[in-house]
Amino acid sequence: MIGERRYRAIVEYDGTDFLGFQIQARGRTVQGEIEKSLQRVTQAAIRIEGAGRTDTGVHAIGQVIAFNAIWQHSLAELHRALNATLPDDIVVSDLKIVDLTFHPRFSALSRSYSYTIVNQPWASVLRRRYAYHVRKPLDVGAMNEASQYLIGSHDFASFGKPPYGDNTVREVSRAEWSANGGLLTFEITANAFLYRMVRTIVGTLVQVGLGQLAANEIKPILEARDLTRSAPPAPPHGLCLVRVTYPAEA
Amino acid sequence: MIGERRYRAIVEYDGTDFLGFQIQARGRTVQGEIEKSLQRVTQAAIRIEGAGRTDTGVHAIGQVIAFNAIWQHSLAELHRALNATLPDDIVVSDLKIVDLTFHPRFSALSRSYSYTIVNQPWASVLRRRYAYHVRKPLDVGAMNEASQYLIGSHDFASFGKPPYGDNTVREVSRAEWSANGGLLTFEITANAFLYRMVRTIVGTLVQVGLGQLAANEIKPILEARDLTRSAPPAPPHGLCLVRVTYPAEA
Repeated sequence: MIGERRYRAIVEYDGTDFLGFQIQARGRTVQGEIEKSLQRVTQAAIRIEGAGRTDTGVHAIGQVIAFNAIWQHSLAELHRALNATLPDDIVVSDLKIVDLTFHPRFSALSRSYSYTIVNQPWASVLRRRYAYHVRKPLDVGAMNEASQYLIGSHDFASFGKPPYGDNTVREVSRAEWSANGGLLTFEITANAFLYRMVRTIVGTLVQVGLGQLAANEIKPILEARDLTRSAPPAPPHGLCLVRVTYPAEA
Repeated sequence: MIGERRYRAIVEYDGTDFLGFQIQARGRTVQGEIEKSLQRVTQAAIRIEGAGRTDTGVHAIGQVIAFNAIWQHSLAELHRALNATLPDDIVVSDLKIVDLTFHPRFSALSRSYSYTIVNQPWASVLRRRYAYHVRKPLDVGAMNEASQYLIGSHDFASFGKPPYGDNTVREVSRAEWSANGGLLTFEITANAFLYRMVRTIVGTLVQVGLGQLAANEIKPILEARDLTRSAPPAPPHGLCLVRVTYPAEA
């Protein structure tokens, strides 16, 4: 008889029609849909764990999940069966067997998110589900200058609340804007993020881009450790969980 | 009193929820929605003309339309009022006053379309509305080699039917695939296109990419002037009308 194995999957989803990743008493969630699909495929109730609990409307191309299952057939068959039963706004892009000790959240070394802004007078209809539309011109140079204050290990209490516990120190290794015509992309990597941290950072950097805040005002805002000092979070639909990294052996 | 003026607009739309550009007795069309919006804004029944009658499900970032209207306020106000009344899957990205003789279709010098393919084992959910998913690996080099047979002035009867009249000669000035990871983009420019010509070309080039047809078999297919010789059209959702060009003075 084949015993239980642990599986790690990379999952891509369009957050538009989900009440976020985490399962809720009511409402359509990414976790709920994946668990439903696993139940159909394996005939067993399986609980999954995710690397990041993305909010309502937030997308992912590199969410990582793990689950234990008893499966008699090949890995490729499980992969195919999952994608055949998942709705068309979720796909498992990679599936492998991992050590039983692997945990998608606790084993993770870093998370990378992207945030996309369409910066032009009129909305881009083809990007309207995946980018935040900012009409007034943004100074990307100033936004990049401001982003540099975030790099390193800091107490980010001004930019979010901890999802559990009270430790608000996080280490940001990358925070950078790039512009391609009217399309601005922010890429940020940290060991972990506070709740709504990327969106609150983006909301605040947009104020810098609009000239409402000077680039070097990010420093005193960060040092204040006071969530009321930052701007409101940018909307969820511009945000995407791009990648989660693990130690090589995991 | 202000007389009638002629306006030219560049229009972007997400074709997913339209029965194509052209107005129909029933069903939601791009033309129908724009005319409804013009009626609300100007209080007059206004007929628009478009450069290309895109099919059901086909997108546009550079459709060009023209219409006559009597408008007492500024051009910027008309532009704003149109975008304020259009549904969120259509936007007017540019609006200007043009000569009364301007016609978006008859004055056009060239049209450019793009066709996007996601070429990887699993669908990309974030691109599922805008790209055709081809699971098996495509040989982009062979597809580019085949594309070169299309360049120049040819009778394209093997790749489409004329939208009116019986002239099936068109002049293709560009036909090129580029690859970025699993994302393949085809860009094609011609003076004009036959009905379903781009999708039929893409469907046939995909057969080349899969190794079902040799690159140089495109030549005899083209020379046969027989629609049954080409492959079925690729699906509409990968197609986008990118740009229509006009003489400098228009």
